Amino acid sequence: MALAAKIQEAIERSSWIRKMFEEGARLKSLYGVDKVFDFSLGNPDLEPPESFRETLRSVVAESPPGGHGYMPNAGYEETRAAVADYVSQEQGVELSSEHVIMTCGAAGGLNCILKALLDPGDEVIVLAPYFVEYGFYAENHGGQIRVVSTHDDFTLDVEAIETAISSRTKVVLINSPNNPTGQVYDDSSLKELGDLLTTSGSKLGRTIYLVSDEPYRKIVYDSVRVPSILEVYRNSIVATSYSKDVSLPGERLGYLVVNPDADQAEALMGGMILANRILGFVNAPALMQRVVRHLQGTCVDVGVYQARRDLFCQGLDHAGYEFVRPRGAFYLFPKSPIADDVAFVRMLQEENILVVPGSGFGGSGYFRIAYCVEEQTIESAIPGFARARQRALS
Amino acid sequence: MALAAKIQEAIERSSWIRKMFEEGARLKSLYGVDKVFDFSLGNPDLEPPESFRETLRSVVAESPPGGHGYMPNAGYEETRAAVADYVSQEQGVELSSEHVIMTCGAAGGLNCILKALLDPGDEVIVLAPYFVEYGFYAENHGGQIRVVSTHDDFTLDVEAIETAISSRTKVVLINSPNNPTGQVYDDSSLKELGDLLTTSGSKLGRTIYLVSDEPYRKIVYDSVRVPSILEVYRNSIVATSYSKDVSLPGERLGYLVVNPDADQAEALMGGMILANRILGFVNAPALMQRVVRHLQGTCVDVGVYQARRDLFCQGLDHAGYEFVRPRGAFYLFPKSPIADDVAFVRMLQEENILVVPGSGFGGSGYFRIAYCVEEQTIESAIPGFARARQRALS
Repeated sequence: MALAAKIQEAIERSSWIRKMFEEGARLKSLYGVDKVFDFSLGNPDLEPPESFRETLRSVVAESPPGGHGYMPNAGYEETRAAVADYVSQEQGVELSSEHVIMTCGAAGGLNCILKALLDPGDEVIVLAPYFVEYGFYAENHGGQIRVVSTHDDFTLDVEAIETAISSRTKVVLINSPNNPTGQVYDDSSLKELGDLLTTSGSKLGRTIYLVSDEPYRKIVYDSVRVPSILEVYRNSIVATSYSKDVSLPGERLGYLVVNPDADQAEALMGGMILANRILGFVNAPALMQRVVRHLQGTCVDVGVYQARRDLFCQGLDHAGYEFVRPRGAFYLFPKSPIADDVAFVRMLQEENILVVPGSGFGGSGYFRIAYCVEEQTIESAIPGFARARQRALS
Repeated sequence: MALAAKIQEAIERSSWIRKMFEEGARLKSLYGVDKVFDFSLGNPDLEPPESFRETLRSVVAESPPGGHGYMPNAGYEETRAAVADYVSQEQGVELSSEHVIMTCGAAGGLNCILKALLDPGDEVIVLAPYFVEYGFYAENHGGQIRVVSTHDDFTLDVEAIETAISSRTKVVLINSPNNPTGQVYDDSSLKELGDLLTTSGSKLGRTIYLVSDEPYRKIVYDSVRVPSILEVYRNSIVATSYSKDVSLPGERLGYLVVNPDADQAEALMGGMILANRILGFVNAPALMQRVVRHLQGTCVDVGVYQARRDLFCQGLDHAGYEFVRPRGAFYLFPKSPIADDVAFVRMLQEENILVVPGSGFGGSGYFRIAYCVEEQTIESAIPGFARARQRALS
């Protein structure tokens, strides 16, 4: 075999997800795109806000000399300063540009963090259900994930995390608002987690970093507040992007923020900036860095996603599904009416409904619905959800 | 130590280069930017061609729905098809979009190749002097480089490569036109290399891939032709970018092309597309993909770089330096008048001249000049080059 064994194995691991997509494509070509209800992709359908389009046009018109050239690997000083100002307010911690690295989305940022931190065999604790890419990100840099359960309502189970911490633990990686559950971790459980990491770290003589992957921070409902991890734990790093709140996932723009009080904060920044360079990102895309500088705090109309959530929750409730009402992001993670979630997802496909089995997120017995689709699609799909459940239980 | 041992070591290895940059910044703040002759950075100073600016404006004005959203990890089908058409002509091999992956520059592309190919301990043969990042790229994915010399004029030494090939060799990585030497490998030596890899591969029962990193392909002088590796060897992959020819290094856009006749070409494409996803690139930046679709074959005015090369060569020649006249790229790699290139680079700094020691490229006893600066700077710096040489030899 010419390919690396690890990538070969990764291809096999991800192939059943590809099969789901292929089945979706087949259904669409057979019945027409408008006859298939596709809830499989977290690709925001809302267009970027008009302020983004205006800023893009004006930044393109400005066209400063060298504006498409290299800049420091951490990004433009002006953009980093704008991010630092904004995040200082958002997260209640005083930051300067020295604590910010512009990255190729949150995915690029997470890879830089793990490249800078993981020694071979180090463990990254992730909380199930979790975004499946985390496993790949840890393995890219010689580490591995250790999967820890959450409570039944997908909230933090700090005791379970305590049990999982060992002398190999380097990172605890959380994602709130959560993909795939829509859960948001509350203040008191995060404080408890911060205290645990402080205690465990000093007991083990080892810094355990709390990394928060939070691209959905602004997409929350019913006035939910997403607490700041920078306030509850010193050794903390935030990774985020403009992919979901400004609807720019294809442009690959995000940033990392390091807690100024973290152990060796400066060395950590240096390590992550070097990782950004040598992993081949080099720097976050130049033009979009100049655009987002002016768009701190910008977000699409979250009311649209909230209305869809309400519609979907009502429909699934009437159809008899069990689920935790999402407090943020644009995903629902209902219980499969039968234990075998892959089998149930196939039954939904017979109704031309595409969703992803929970097994793909370390959450077997559930399935994920992405509701970044129009309300009409949701309304039209509900009878199919109801029929599939009836059939599954009969 | 909280940081990963490997990143800590990488920081130390790259710290003397940083020290050079810091010294440059110090000189600039002391004497003024216009009094310092900075030849240290390969950041093209020519602005992107007007056709780029027009296309960017019109693509921004089009603003199609979902135009900043996710697309397949390999990139937009239309962009890949345009690249395939262009590269088919350029390299004399029939390609389709199925053989093209849009990447985050050539650096991102090379990381995807090595992630897809390297098993732990696998070797990547690089030809000294070489771009220093190659060592990091190989180590990122559990491999390591094996450095092989070129001839005195920096042309391919195929015999030396033959001696270095072992059962651990997975990739031979070439860069032509070359950074830091400006050399271009000719047809006959590349054919010889291709034959060697065919023979060695079947002898070892192992596919050895020839990877060509060629962002400077269009920047050549005196009607030099850069041969196609796709024509001379079946198991070949091209990595390139729009960074140098369209002057867009900050936008991070490039592509990979796989030889359609390569062993397991389809699996290789699948592996590299997955690598693009899980390394966190996800996809090359969307907007710029839509721009370069219309800019195949576009290049800045190479005559400007050629005039600078001529001016620099004449000046260095008069000052008594020995060097190989560059046939492409925008670098000169003269011999240091004294064996210790780092010491000589310090002597140039005393003349407010910034260059990079050859040691940084596995080429000690030389130094690198990047001439992506105005002719005026070159003219003004020549007397300093002459004085430094005199002092070094006195």
